[in-house]
Amino acid sequence: MSDKPVTITFQPYDITVEVARGENILRAALAAGIYIEASCGGAGACGKCLIKVLGGETDGPGADDSGLHRACRTCVQSDTVVEIPEESRLEADALESRRARSPISPAVFEKLNTDWRVDPPKVKYHHQIDPPTIENNRSDVSRVARAVKNHYKLDNIRMDPELTRRLSGTLREKDWSVTSTVYLHEGDRRRGDYYVSDLALTTLTNVEPGDTTDKMYGLAVDIGTTGLCAELINLRSGEVAASESGYNPQIRFGADVLSRIVFSQKGDGLLELQKTIIGGINEQIEKLLSQAGVERDSITQMAVAGNTTMTHLFLGLDPKYLREAPYVPATNFVAPLRAAELGIELGHHVILFVFPSIASYMGGDITAGLLATGVYQNDALTLYIDVGTNGEVAVGNADWIMTASCSAGPAFEGGGIEHGMIATPGAIEDFNLNPKTFEPMLLTVGMEKPRGICGSGLISAAADLFRAGVLAPNGKYETGVKTERLRKGKNGLEYVLAWKKDTAVDHDIVLGEADLDNLLRAKGAMYAGYQTLLDNARMSAKDLDRVIIAGAFGSYLDLESAITIGLLPDLDRDKFLYVGNGSLAGARLLNLSRKMIAQAETVSKMMTNIELSDNTAFMDNYMASMFFPHTNPDLFPSVKRSGT
Amino acid sequence: MSDKPVTITFQPYDITVEVARGENILRAALAAGIYIEASCGGAGACGKCLIKVLGGETDGPGADDSGLHRACRTCVQSDTVVEIPEESRLEADALESRRARSPISPAVFEKLNTDWRVDPPKVKYHHQIDPPTIENNRSDVSRVARAVKNHYKLDNIRMDPELTRRLSGTLREKDWSVTSTVYLHEGDRRRGDYYVSDLALTTLTNVEPGDTTDKMYGLAVDIGTTGLCAELINLRSGEVAASESGYNPQIRFGADVLSRIVFSQKGDGLLELQKTIIGGINEQIEKLLSQAGVERDSITQMAVAGNTTMTHLFLGLDPKYLREAPYVPATNFVAPLRAAELGIELGHHVILFVFPSIASYMGGDITAGLLATGVYQNDALTLYIDVGTNGEVAVGNADWIMTASCSAGPAFEGGGIEHGMIATPGAIEDFNLNPKTFEPMLLTVGMEKPRGICGSGLISAAADLFRAGVLAPNGKYETGVKTERLRKGKNGLEYVLAWKKDTAVDHDIVLGEADLDNLLRAKGAMYAGYQTLLDNARMSAKDLDRVIIAGAFGSYLDLESAITIGLLPDLDRDKFLYVGNGSLAGARLLNLSRKMIAQAETVSKMMTNIELSDNTAFMDNYMASMFFPHTNPDLFPSVKRSGT
Repeated sequence: MSDKPVTITFQPYDITVEVARGENILRAALAAGIYIEASCGGAGACGKCLIKVLGGETDGPGADDSGLHRACRTCVQSDTVVEIPEESRLEADALESRRARSPISPAVFEKLNTDWRVDPPKVKYHHQIDPPTIENNRSDVSRVARAVKNHYKLDNIRMDPELTRRLSGTLREKDWSVTSTVYLHEGDRRRGDYYVSDLALTTLTNVEPGDTTDKMYGLAVDIGTTGLCAELINLRSGEVAASESGYNPQIRFGADVLSRIVFSQKGDGLLELQKTIIGGINEQIEKLLSQAGVERDSITQMAVAGNTTMTHLFLGLDPKYLREAPYVPATNFVAPLRAAELGIELGHHVILFVFPSIASYMGGDITAGLLATGVYQNDALTLYIDVGTNGEVAVGNADWIMTASCSAGPAFEGGGIEHGMIATPGAIEDFNLNPKTFEPMLLTVGMEKPRGICGSGLISAAADLFRAGVLAPNGKYETGVKTERLRKGKNGLEYVLAWKKDTAVDHDIVLGEADLDNLLRAKGAMYAGYQTLLDNARMSAKDLDRVIIAGAFGSYLDLESAITIGLLPDLDRDKFLYVGNGSLAGARLLNLSRKMIAQAETVSKMMTNIELSDNTAFMDNYMASMFFPHTNPDLFPSVKRSGT
Repeated sequence: MSDKPVTITFQPYDITVEVARGENILRAALAAGIYIEASCGGAGACGKCLIKVLGGETDGPGADDSGLHRACRTCVQSDTVVEIPEESRLEADALESRRARSPISPAVFEKLNTDWRVDPPKVKYHHQIDPPTIENNRSDVSRVARAVKNHYKLDNIRMDPELTRRLSGTLREKDWSVTSTVYLHEGDRRRGDYYVSDLALTTLTNVEPGDTTDKMYGLAVDIGTTGLCAELINLRSGEVAASESGYNPQIRFGADVLSRIVFSQKGDGLLELQKTIIGGINEQIEKLLSQAGVERDSITQMAVAGNTTMTHLFLGLDPKYLREAPYVPATNFVAPLRAAELGIELGHHVILFVFPSIASYMGGDITAGLLATGVYQNDALTLYIDVGTNGEVAVGNADWIMTASCSAGPAFEGGGIEHGMIATPGAIEDFNLNPKTFEPMLLTVGMEKPRGICGSGLISAAADLFRAGVLAPNGKYETGVKTERLRKGKNGLEYVLAWKKDTAVDHDIVLGEADLDNLLRAKGAMYAGYQTLLDNARMSAKDLDRVIIAGAFGSYLDLESAITIGLLPDLDRDKFLYVGNGSLAGARLLNLSRKMIAQAETVSKMMTNIELSDNTAFMDNYMASMFFPHTNPDLFPSVKRSGT
């Protein structure tokens, strides 16, 4: 029953929102666009976020002597009515500009990509083989090959050489009762631009004693520059049996792609980087298997998606030329190979599929995301956007797909921001502003005292400061705004997000004009990226039927704020979909549907990558987008600003 | 000029033979069927083989006081006339039964198999690749794949995954000048009984910096139970650049196939056997390369032939079921694989072809021999016979080939013979008998004092004793023969081949009736083997157009003796061909001609193996051949016996 949502009604505004049972009132208010003063990020320290509980069941330390609860410490257990006290209350006009979160619909991959069903590239079948006699003493291998070929009505089959080494024992272990695992190759073997793989032939990859047809699992892995995510997938039910995520352990050799490439060029650097990521994957496999109670040998296949550099390092390919003009990958297409060959602790029979990259800065992670979200099979014109330091954008539909990578810089990950940080506890991740008092309402990761601000907080803060008229479209603060929080800083003006006393650090946490300038560049690069693709197709943002937001960052991104600062286009909010880790979803799909293997190639071939580095159209779009939301406000009709 | 043969004329018979300059007179006499008494095997000890040199230049210690030379110590340097002294001389009637060696024509493979030309399965081409530009920054792999596909006009190509790892560096090492090595697959990809290999796809296996097109070598290896032979072949000229032979180092784990199979079942036995043969091959590679002054990387491919057990052990396949009814190989067909995978010290790009076996006791060595001798493409009805403990016979032509393995027992290798030994120094390898005095003329390996008798000596001795009427057709000695050399032994009668005083051992060396019984069984098994195949084809030995004798044993086999005892059929002597190591020749051919790869499969599919173990026709043939030469002497019209 705990799954049933409850409501919170905020008085005197009479605004009712639906939330999960157990939701924190401060967080719910923020999402609903209700301002409550909160200086300490939800840590329960500043004592400002006071509310009155008028009805309903709540958890928490309870009311103080005045009968008020701290919103940040109070969670709802039933339908609850809450009154905002006079001092936190907004006037009607300010309330009107309240900025409720538009929750982005999470994607249902089954609906986005309708091209597949559970039909994994590997199939198992249980055979009862006729044992040999003196009259019919053909070889063990031939006997099995015949049985498999007869069952699948194949003219020929490729047999794994390693398999022949242990077949004789396997056949006799359970009296000639065995289960074969076959990779059924389908479709076109030709590949104009690249080359074909061993698995362009239907292959018998494994024979196990007895009937193991119910033991079929696949492994999906997304290798991000920062994160490493894996899923164990039951290939019979199609369900995710276990999932794991953590840091990419290569981080200790450098936080970004470039520093890893540099490291790879030193001595055994490349080998060390490869071993490190393989080790990280092996650890996750260990955890997935124990989580799901699945035996290692039940894994029959594996799919990996990553950006071009991560893919190179994973495979031990020299990434040296990725970063030197003219930016040439060692390879984009990687033929299926044995997972064990790379040191992955899985049986020799486990075949590894790697998503094809497109260019040095357009990787298999995007191919995977475009596959998972069915962009390639849908007539709807779609913008696929993966926000990050190395942001990627794709625009297209079933007929064409154009892609571009945008060097947005690290602002979205808190980099290059004076008090920026990644989204770890204490990072201001959400922000609301009282448009009268200009006092902030802060929410931090883990609801701890603030330590800095992360990407989502930066976007929220910039958007709210802009809407309240504190921030001008050019990213400079308005000098006429009356609040002690706005002051002269080291470089121009700065807004104090949190006073030292309310923080976990030894200084005020501020947002300066240099930070805002970095944000402008970052969002401008992303915007100009997809705008350039649209220009190339002689289209505009208005023509977009869908906007799919991918990437780990996506889930914390507030849609209204992102539109307000001009990062995302100003379209009907129901056109936006949040897909989370599209790369991992693509890897999952490749495990589940053999048709998707061919389609991954199809998608990669459809993708025309536009190089933005020397592109004058891009530069024009970039310059034009260096305003909040844009130099041409008509492109963002829904974005309103106080006093304009 | 030393290559020019010289002549020896034996007086008073006025028989002239042509021999190589430097030939030993005793040996030459033996080959010519001239009897000279010789008791010590040619060691120069007994002083009986006296001759008079009437003219010509000779080497050696020279004449004794009576003006006589010891034949065993005298070698000819020019045309020489020799007189046999009175006491060694035979009467006219005895002379008539003299048994000159019929030298078996050595085979010329180029004439036997006319199906090929030098056209190796791998080809090299030198490319000058266009370097990438910012406008054309396709991946290194794609760039190379395109260049190769354009050159060979291919729709697609398989690329070795390992190759992609080092391609970027290779391309830039000599300014985009590279040499590609491609395995060009040709022909039918279907293989009804077995399965297809990775190389059913044309594959780019290597890319080297610069122009290496003149460096193309192949390695041919024959793995015998006893011996290991290898050749380094220049794939451009087709010539053998170096050759090596030695023992199969697995010998220390057991001399025969069965004892190795037994060893393979103990602990890590199989792995140890595999490592041992791979180690032996690696040593021979080392020697071949230094002999020919060739770099290791110049080897592009390798072909191996061996019997079924040797092939299993080489590949690490469990041979356990080869020796247990119903005698099932793990596999007969082995897909081409990477030599390096097995631990062979050659580059990853070196592809290894393994000759297909037919059954547990019909191996790839015979497939290779049948390929090399072109049996499969010739209308001439051919008997291919590999004499040995595990003897193999094949009968057929371009339309059909039947094969059988005959458990001849170890007699041909000196096993099961009271004073038997393998053909090492001191082994009596040739024998001639004075049909009047019944005194022997012995020749030993290395012309040392006798230590025992090996297979060829056994056949010669039995044949001569039979022809001189000392031995009855049933393999028992005639009791009426007057010589002190014939005496009662431990089991029945025995003939003293060498008196203790003339030997290097501490006893007389004898040939007993039990030994002759073993010889009868051995030759009977071989004869019955091919006779059964001929019966199956409703043919007889008279229909044979050719008899091809293969195997290391073959070169020491005296044709007349082998026919006399009924091992080989009594046909025109010019129908016999000696091919030596047919297995190695097949491996050489596979290196030289890519057409031969498909033909090796064709041959293996043509081969119908007849299981003799429970075959009643074989048993009948076997019983009928347990006589010298046969129970039906009409089958051996040319075999004459004194007193019959």
